[in-house]
Amino acid sequence: MTHKHTHTCAIAGMLNIFGDHWTWLVVREAFYGATRFKDFQRNTGISRNLLADRLSVLVDEGIFKKTDIGTQGTRFAYELTDKGQSLQPVLAAMTLWGNEHVFGAGNEPVLMVDQKSGLRVEALHPVNAKGRKVLPENVIAMPGPGASKATIRRLEEAAAQDGS
Amino acid sequence: MTHKHTHTCAIAGMLNIFGDHWTWLVVREAFYGATRFKDFQRNTGISRNLLADRLSVLVDEGIFKKTDIGTQGTRFAYELTDKGQSLQPVLAAMTLWGNEHVFGAGNEPVLMVDQKSGLRVEALHPVNAKGRKVLPENVIAMPGPGASKATIRRLEEAAAQDGS
Repeated sequence: MTHKHTHTCAIAGMLNIFGDHWTWLVVREAFYGATRFKDFQRNTGISRNLLADRLSVLVDEGIFKKTDIGTQGTRFAYELTDKGQSLQPVLAAMTLWGNEHVFGAGNEPVLMVDQKSGLRVEALHPVNAKGRKVLPENVIAMPGPGASKATIRRLEEAAAQDGS
Repeated sequence: MTHKHTHTCAIAGMLNIFGDHWTWLVVREAFYGATRFKDFQRNTGISRNLLADRLSVLVDEGIFKKTDIGTQGTRFAYELTDKGQSLQPVLAAMTLWGNEHVFGAGNEPVLMVDQKSGLRVEALHPVNAKGRKVLPENVIAMPGPGASKATIRRLEEAAAQDGS
């Protein structure tokens, strides 16, 4: 998508970076350990042109680090930075939803498993600043310090509706 | 994106439904309480054509429920189904990432707050089937019952790389 969202919205801000869906699959591959152009290409089915574009955006945005692993600047490795690693909850949430609602129980393509207990990861729980679990129904959206007037008005409307 | 991914991958499966980024913003609006066509349009800036298309996909996929709230079939409300509600962790994970990495601390447009404690929601923790917190570094991907041969091979490669 070439259109850039200009709302003050963290979701829109993130999606502006991610372009289309290929980027998500490229990042998924990085979590599986892919580092080389040809591996990203083979494992996602993306075209060379699109992949070159997506890798360059991911490097520019500090999500991937590009390292020269050859001697002539002809071989490169792409690895997740800390900023990239912090995408894990987003991909995990997508995986859980897709497993449940696209493929369904008993037909999951990929499971997330807790290596320690051997049990499946079954949910992501929001936790507050003290590390305490928060019930999803108690999570509310509030204007932050960077909210535009439109965002503030929008959330006031939402709150009014909620209380009605 | 018209291209449909055919991997056995829950992320790809989910992204096939979501089309482009507008869908995420429409779903975000539903979480803020929007139910009417004109509100989705105003709050996202999406065109009427695109919005009609995205709403129809969301209804077909069982993410939104469309209800006739008029008398002549001219006024409709769109509401999240249970399947739609279960997108909350995906949107929450995107919000946290976008707040931290796109807007940055002190400039967050929208904060998620725990209504009970008044504290911010600061993370999403994976939990296993017994409800116990799992350290992100202990989460591994394993082929599920619906994995294709390509997916199984891919994850075997990843595991071998991990152990090396």
